[in-house]
Amino acid sequence: MKSMENFFNPHSIAIFASMKEGKTGYEIVKNMVEGGFKGNIYPVSQSGGQIFGVNINKDFKNLEIDLAIIAIPGQFIPSLLEDLGSRGVKSAVIISAGFSEVGNIEEEKEIKKIAEKYKMRIIGPNCAGIMNTGCNLFASIEVRALLGQTAFITQSGALGGAVLMMAEELGFGFSKFVSYGNRCDVDEVDLIKYLEDDPQTKVITLYIEGLEEGRRFLTQAKKTVLKKPIIAIKAGKSKAGMRATSSHTGSLAGEDKIYDAAFKQAGILRVEGVEEMFDLCRGLIHYPKIKGNKIGVITNSGGPAVLTTDKLEELGLMVSEPSESLKNKLKKILPPHVSLGNPFDLLAYGGAENFAQVSKTISSEYDVIIAIFVPTASMDSVEIATALGKIKEEIKIPIFANFMAGRLVKKGIEELNRYGIPNYETGERCAKVIQKIILRTSKINNFNLCN
Amino acid sequence: MKSMENFFNPHSIAIFASMKEGKTGYEIVKNMVEGGFKGNIYPVSQSGGQIFGVNINKDFKNLEIDLAIIAIPGQFIPSLLEDLGSRGVKSAVIISAGFSEVGNIEEEKEIKKIAEKYKMRIIGPNCAGIMNTGCNLFASIEVRALLGQTAFITQSGALGGAVLMMAEELGFGFSKFVSYGNRCDVDEVDLIKYLEDDPQTKVITLYIEGLEEGRRFLTQAKKTVLKKPIIAIKAGKSKAGMRATSSHTGSLAGEDKIYDAAFKQAGILRVEGVEEMFDLCRGLIHYPKIKGNKIGVITNSGGPAVLTTDKLEELGLMVSEPSESLKNKLKKILPPHVSLGNPFDLLAYGGAENFAQVSKTISSEYDVIIAIFVPTASMDSVEIATALGKIKEEIKIPIFANFMAGRLVKKGIEELNRYGIPNYETGERCAKVIQKIILRTSKINNFNLCN
Repeated sequence: MKSMENFFNPHSIAIFASMKEGKTGYEIVKNMVEGGFKGNIYPVSQSGGQIFGVNINKDFKNLEIDLAIIAIPGQFIPSLLEDLGSRGVKSAVIISAGFSEVGNIEEEKEIKKIAEKYKMRIIGPNCAGIMNTGCNLFASIEVRALLGQTAFITQSGALGGAVLMMAEELGFGFSKFVSYGNRCDVDEVDLIKYLEDDPQTKVITLYIEGLEEGRRFLTQAKKTVLKKPIIAIKAGKSKAGMRATSSHTGSLAGEDKIYDAAFKQAGILRVEGVEEMFDLCRGLIHYPKIKGNKIGVITNSGGPAVLTTDKLEELGLMVSEPSESLKNKLKKILPPHVSLGNPFDLLAYGGAENFAQVSKTISSEYDVIIAIFVPTASMDSVEIATALGKIKEEIKIPIFANFMAGRLVKKGIEELNRYGIPNYETGERCAKVIQKIILRTSKINNFNLCN
Repeated sequence: MKSMENFFNPHSIAIFASMKEGKTGYEIVKNMVEGGFKGNIYPVSQSGGQIFGVNINKDFKNLEIDLAIIAIPGQFIPSLLEDLGSRGVKSAVIISAGFSEVGNIEEEKEIKKIAEKYKMRIIGPNCAGIMNTGCNLFASIEVRALLGQTAFITQSGALGGAVLMMAEELGFGFSKFVSYGNRCDVDEVDLIKYLEDDPQTKVITLYIEGLEEGRRFLTQAKKTVLKKPIIAIKAGKSKAGMRATSSHTGSLAGEDKIYDAAFKQAGILRVEGVEEMFDLCRGLIHYPKIKGNKIGVITNSGGPAVLTTDKLEELGLMVSEPSESLKNKLKKILPPHVSLGNPFDLLAYGGAENFAQVSKTISSEYDVIIAIFVPTASMDSVEIATALGKIKEEIKIPIFANFMAGRLVKKGIEELNRYGIPNYETGERCAKVIQKIILRTSKINNFNLCN
């Protein structure tokens, strides 16, 4: 796997591209330099000169290259690959487009042949590059990913770019980012296999439009999900979507039902789109497993709790009533008028201490707690967050939060983050996340029983 | 309706509450003064003194009061109402809690009786107050609403507060905000009737947990939806949700299926939660009607367009192929390699001119356009937005946008706003909005045919 390692942890990286302002090469070098890559950065272009304080090399005879990033016009790529291969370069990312996605299938085959000849691994062509935030590798023109624990691999470069921009807005980070484009060589399966053992990656996410080797993919996925969750966005469900897919990547989307069944069988969590993907990742990073489906909802606000409860039950989860003995325990610690049923509505009494006490008390009968908080004049969101954070360390079940909303709970949410409690803008979104994690847990428990 | 008018456009407002720092009265006067209410603000409290530059009145004998806001302890309310009633005050908002929602049904009946005696209208008790951004009336302790064209009426005060905070975060404004709590007098029907003729309100939204007079509600709603859309969040769908509802407002949620059917019959658009409500409002404000279900998707990015297309078809909308003659027209204006099918994927050529040309050309065959844009180094989101904005004025069909994402499209989205083009974070959310508007349109067209 040395060549795979070269993609993500190269000591030296060479960028073959025009270095003119605004061009791909320029943007990549900018990202690499500004991102703080510790290894050698070798821009290579006939222009020579300097860029971002780095010399532009007119040739690469004397350079030792672990990873080549290529963004030159397609017709010059084969001879460059021959050169690189004969000098022992083992890994290349081809960003340039104009291959199978526009019908130039032979040109892409030629590239693949050269790569095989030299045992060189290739990501691309027609891709948006790769990133490893662990070593500040930003070999891409896209917005630099923040540091995080989710790996994102994507067939669509533009969607990859959009995801990075949305993530930046949310403060959501990535361990690795890979846009693999036409996958003439390295494909999803290679990447999942690599990421399975990547200590920086806790969750693997992918956007795919179609697979070429379904069985190989599923075999790998089934193995990987035992170690870490895989989340997939599979586009091209509908007829028009499939038509669009085949026109823009040249791959066949295939019958969606088959994908859906296969994902389920392999324990892959399928999500509808990017927002749900972010939501689910934020849950899975803290709680890769949830053991049962009894949900206790604690709130200081009736309305949002009802909406959350509706969604939980719609998704097949149980917002079950506490036992009589638990009710008796609650009665002792709670003020009068407070509901002893689930959702546990603390009303205006819902201060930090009550949130903590109720969480602790009900943790014996529930598998998950959702804490819903709407600030009032007398209640501070940070205090509630701290109390929940401390109790989380004491009790053994996951706590999710739905602090509503905006600037009045901003600091509270930051405090929740410090304690590893994921917060969701609505309880409904929170419910969806919990349901998917429970699904995953029961699936992999089954796998483990079978093995 | 003079008393209803008094709620929203009073010349003078008296606030009966403790004016100590942090207390309800203090917060309301603060909101009224800082919000810039033009009429008279009369805080009334035994304390006397001044608050935010306004004199606190020890009694109200010499005050002319259009609207009384009451937040004193429940046991003092009947005698205050008698006083107010005998002095001819016609409208009061009772914020104080502790009535039917905690079982004090007789106390609430007494209030209602006094109100009837003096022909006084009452909003509340157990509510979070009211706002009219049109005259800077912020008679509430909640975050002040921004100016907008959506009226929001809510049974749950806490949910109302959360909605206002979320809206502030989104820059989303309201024409009116009414938390009506236990609705001992003024209810949803009165409010909808009033808002039907309110020129500042383009869309009416409501959060309800249960109705008391279903038939009256539906008769009014059926009439109102012909003039302006009504969006409803109905909580208490599930068994546990219903249990929670009845415990926290004292009202029965009733069988959800009945509500669902009734809403459909009346042409009320039901949404799952607050996020979908905001999304739909932003669409309806610009496009109250959409006449058909043929959607043209224009994009510079394949992946997001496929996800959007999948959602559109899942929702029963048509992403149909263009006719041969339209294809021929497109061929003449587009660069090679650009897809002549729907979604119309402009690839890297997708500049402002292409977006505008294609929008104009396909407007003859489609009912709606969704423009999806992911910025690249060479393409500026503002230019695309301006081009779409100008073409929108020329063509007769609605344009929706999905500019992705974050800071790279922030200015573009502001430009879209200037032209009245709603932008959605994902194409999937955009698809849901379009489907609901089409639904409404076909419904009210049917009503009109029947009438």
